[in-house]
Amino acid sequence: MGSLWNRFQEWLYVHPGLQFHLDVSRMGFDAGLPERLDSAFAAAFAAMEDLEAGGIANPDEERMVGHYWLRQPDLAPSEEIRTEIVAVIERIEGFAMEVHAGTIHPPTAPRFTDLLAIGIGGSALGPQFVAAALGPDQAPLAIHFIDNTDPAGIDRVLAGLRDRLGSTLVIDTSKSGGTPEPRNGLLEVQQAFAAQGLDFASHAVAITMPGSRMDLLAHEQHWLAEFPMHDWVGGRTSVLSAVGLLPAALQGIDIRALLEGARVMDEATRVPRVRTNPAALLALSWFHAGEGRGSKDMVVLPYKDSLLLFSRYLQQLVMESLGKEMDLDGKVVHQGIAVYGNKGSTDQHAYVQQLREGIPNFFATFIEVLEDRCGDSIEVEEGVTSGDFLSGFLMGTRQALYDNQRDSITITIGRVEPRSIGALIALYERAVGLYASLVNINAYHQPGVEAGKKAAAAILDLQRRVVRVLQAADHPLPLEDLAQRADASEAVETVYQIVRHLAANPRGIVLDGDPAQPHTLTASLRQLVLQP
Amino acid sequence: MGSLWNRFQEWLYVHPGLQFHLDVSRMGFDAGLPERLDSAFAAAFAAMEDLEAGGIANPDEERMVGHYWLRQPDLAPSEEIRTEIVAVIERIEGFAMEVHAGTIHPPTAPRFTDLLAIGIGGSALGPQFVAAALGPDQAPLAIHFIDNTDPAGIDRVLAGLRDRLGSTLVIDTSKSGGTPEPRNGLLEVQQAFAAQGLDFASHAVAITMPGSRMDLLAHEQHWLAEFPMHDWVGGRTSVLSAVGLLPAALQGIDIRALLEGARVMDEATRVPRVRTNPAALLALSWFHAGEGRGSKDMVVLPYKDSLLLFSRYLQQLVMESLGKEMDLDGKVVHQGIAVYGNKGSTDQHAYVQQLREGIPNFFATFIEVLEDRCGDSIEVEEGVTSGDFLSGFLMGTRQALYDNQRDSITITIGRVEPRSIGALIALYERAVGLYASLVNINAYHQPGVEAGKKAAAAILDLQRRVVRVLQAADHPLPLEDLAQRADASEAVETVYQIVRHLAANPRGIVLDGDPAQPHTLTASLRQLVLQP
Repeated sequence: MGSLWNRFQEWLYVHPGLQFHLDVSRMGFDAGLPERLDSAFAAAFAAMEDLEAGGIANPDEERMVGHYWLRQPDLAPSEEIRTEIVAVIERIEGFAMEVHAGTIHPPTAPRFTDLLAIGIGGSALGPQFVAAALGPDQAPLAIHFIDNTDPAGIDRVLAGLRDRLGSTLVIDTSKSGGTPEPRNGLLEVQQAFAAQGLDFASHAVAITMPGSRMDLLAHEQHWLAEFPMHDWVGGRTSVLSAVGLLPAALQGIDIRALLEGARVMDEATRVPRVRTNPAALLALSWFHAGEGRGSKDMVVLPYKDSLLLFSRYLQQLVMESLGKEMDLDGKVVHQGIAVYGNKGSTDQHAYVQQLREGIPNFFATFIEVLEDRCGDSIEVEEGVTSGDFLSGFLMGTRQALYDNQRDSITITIGRVEPRSIGALIALYERAVGLYASLVNINAYHQPGVEAGKKAAAAILDLQRRVVRVLQAADHPLPLEDLAQRADASEAVETVYQIVRHLAANPRGIVLDGDPAQPHTLTASLRQLVLQP
Repeated sequence: MGSLWNRFQEWLYVHPGLQFHLDVSRMGFDAGLPERLDSAFAAAFAAMEDLEAGGIANPDEERMVGHYWLRQPDLAPSEEIRTEIVAVIERIEGFAMEVHAGTIHPPTAPRFTDLLAIGIGGSALGPQFVAAALGPDQAPLAIHFIDNTDPAGIDRVLAGLRDRLGSTLVIDTSKSGGTPEPRNGLLEVQQAFAAQGLDFASHAVAITMPGSRMDLLAHEQHWLAEFPMHDWVGGRTSVLSAVGLLPAALQGIDIRALLEGARVMDEATRVPRVRTNPAALLALSWFHAGEGRGSKDMVVLPYKDSLLLFSRYLQQLVMESLGKEMDLDGKVVHQGIAVYGNKGSTDQHAYVQQLREGIPNFFATFIEVLEDRCGDSIEVEEGVTSGDFLSGFLMGTRQALYDNQRDSITITIGRVEPRSIGALIALYERAVGLYASLVNINAYHQPGVEAGKKAAAAILDLQRRVVRVLQAADHPLPLEDLAQRADASEAVETVYQIVRHLAANPRGIVLDGDPAQPHTLTASLRQLVLQP
């Protein structure tokens, strides 16, 4: 046990300015690992330097990767970019101030009361995480999200806003303007505004790339405002661009402190020495845990309710960045690290049973917040508060995992505030970049996502053909017949699924036969129903 | 492709009464697997029959496992239990009706407007899942949860209720009454009521075991009502007991339909033949995917916003049930299946990149809901609705995973309604039980959870000793000295963590020295601060 305390002190990383502690002593690597990875880390630090200097790090899209510039504009590779970053932050602050003051207000109300953010992926998870972590109890605007193309989900959000739609500010975030989910969300919300006789454009703000489809639409319709997405910021690292900063500022969150926390952590994680660089220590630990192949899942357990969404945020950042088929040399490697988790001590009651005793296919990351709450606490037992229990559960679980040979990392921050959240975001961005270098993959593209969009588009195309065939048919068609006429004899199963879905909705399509025996089913179109 | 359509039809399970489809055709098992598992399944069906008949299935606690009786009381092994189940459901309905009508109301308001549910683990996740899935837009009582012992989290919930605490009904759920989280939550909430001069007891409802500490407290303080937790219902399968039914009924959810959906699915999953039993088909698929050792994670992807929490609910049900060190013969096996997921298509943008191309350490479970929304949809593209996109994303992703040799299961339900949710709950309860039999473990105990509670208690005990030492000390103490005096020289690291946490809160304890070098730190107590 004495040696454990020595190991703890030997590996402890502390950033006093950020009140930040990182403990990797309970990751079971031997002292030789950093040396063995020495040249790999040297290459990783060099690659990071090149990226920060404006190298083309996303080869698919031929673009620079510049999220680090957002919090330190003087690093940006051109004067134009530097000026743009500074100007956007100032415009965001100015816009939020005017909205809060009521200088900018909706046509039919003195103030905006609510904020509806439409976006998916990086345009949702970052803002959702920041809102949950930092949103004040009495935010000047209450935030709501449409982060999917689920009609019932959209209806539920709009039902909650029904009485306040006239004082709701809408932000639609879409880099290209062509991603279906935010486009569909926009159309559904516009319809809801129209149904109440409200002028949507005077409630609408676009966050998009200059020149995109949405940019053109916003100009044409004279939307209230527009903020840029830069082509050198990827979705999963966009939370400190306008994508995250605008909703944060509108909720009254100090965005300068958020940026400053990230800037300070960036500085700390630029140090080209593993032992004194917390992002490198994380990358080292991940490499050790999964033997550089992602063979252990990353279980993220923040012991703080407001950090519940951190694991979902990291899930995207880590899995989209690291989950790659090929390495930089074009070799098939199937890399990645699976990430999951919610919050402690709640998750202790859900699945620490498995973590302690079951399949050892993971390593844990505990996130501890030292400050329990703002203000004093009551005693719940002699000399003990609710926060002491939370802290005791964290320490007890960490110890129990160690006793059972399960590795864990512990990150400690002083409190949940814009500065520490900015630092956590920056820490993991850097750790992912360094780890990607260690395992020789590109962290900054996502070829599989594009393929997914194409697969869905092909199915919608088939759906249109199926409906046309049914329109033309004069009798109910068996599925195989229908598939053949729709030029899809190879895809009877998909045709079946399409028709089953259409028949369950008021679209005029009917399926007859025994649902348990698809070959008995026939499809027909009674009457085409759609509200254009 | 023709053979794929044949395989699809061959394995398709349909329950027309439940509008339920299960497709395991994209799990790559060969036709011989069911035969090879024939005797294991025969034993699993027999074990399930024994359990349903009242066998002692939880050996640690010497208790029966009777969650199946909750929806079909005539199966219960005694008249006493049968009568009790029926009576509790009637009492819940009666209580909810009186609360809705205002016959039962708070002392200072004509009606209860809000519901605050305090509970953790099974006492939170089930009710949270049901509320998210089925809670109506305009619920008679709006539900809120305290599901942790995080002071800041509790403060946030109470801040949201500040103006309506006088019309808030509180349900405290704790089987033994001794679990710290709901006990702490209760004390914090009582304090908030007292601070507003409100009589807590006339707002409070207990759900607990007769004879428990909470039962005694509720009687003593004359709480508004009390409902029983049965000793034969485990936390993770308690959602169809009073634990889940009471909050559901208070939100206006049809609990009879919830129970009926489960009962019908129970019937369907009792069939002792793998091919016609959907729970057995799931267990078979899991066994195939993870080779009976949990070597693949279960990624749960419901394409429906209201089912977002289903994966968290399953995470608990599956991981707590299956994550076991030893099998039924006492052999060390370290079993389990890791479960994670949120919702589609949102998660496609977060991590389908990894699922498609990265490490193939998972199988997916898609959950499809045929009905898009209540009512008509607008066209977002020619002939296509938002719901068609959602459906297209699901099918496209399923196809893409298949093309890349990633297995998937697809569950399809007609709509999200009490009946289908009850059926899903029952389906997975049974699947977990059958799978546990296949791999020869006990699904109904959780020895590791008890150990976790003990570890935390030991840390709080050490904290008390540390504080006493600091009270008695006349000079600041270095950590090793402090640990020794607290009779914990083996645990300097824990002492350090305890003191660091206390020093970050208004507890009168001060740490001096360089935070980056723990051996330089000294602790002292300026003044003991606690509000008893």
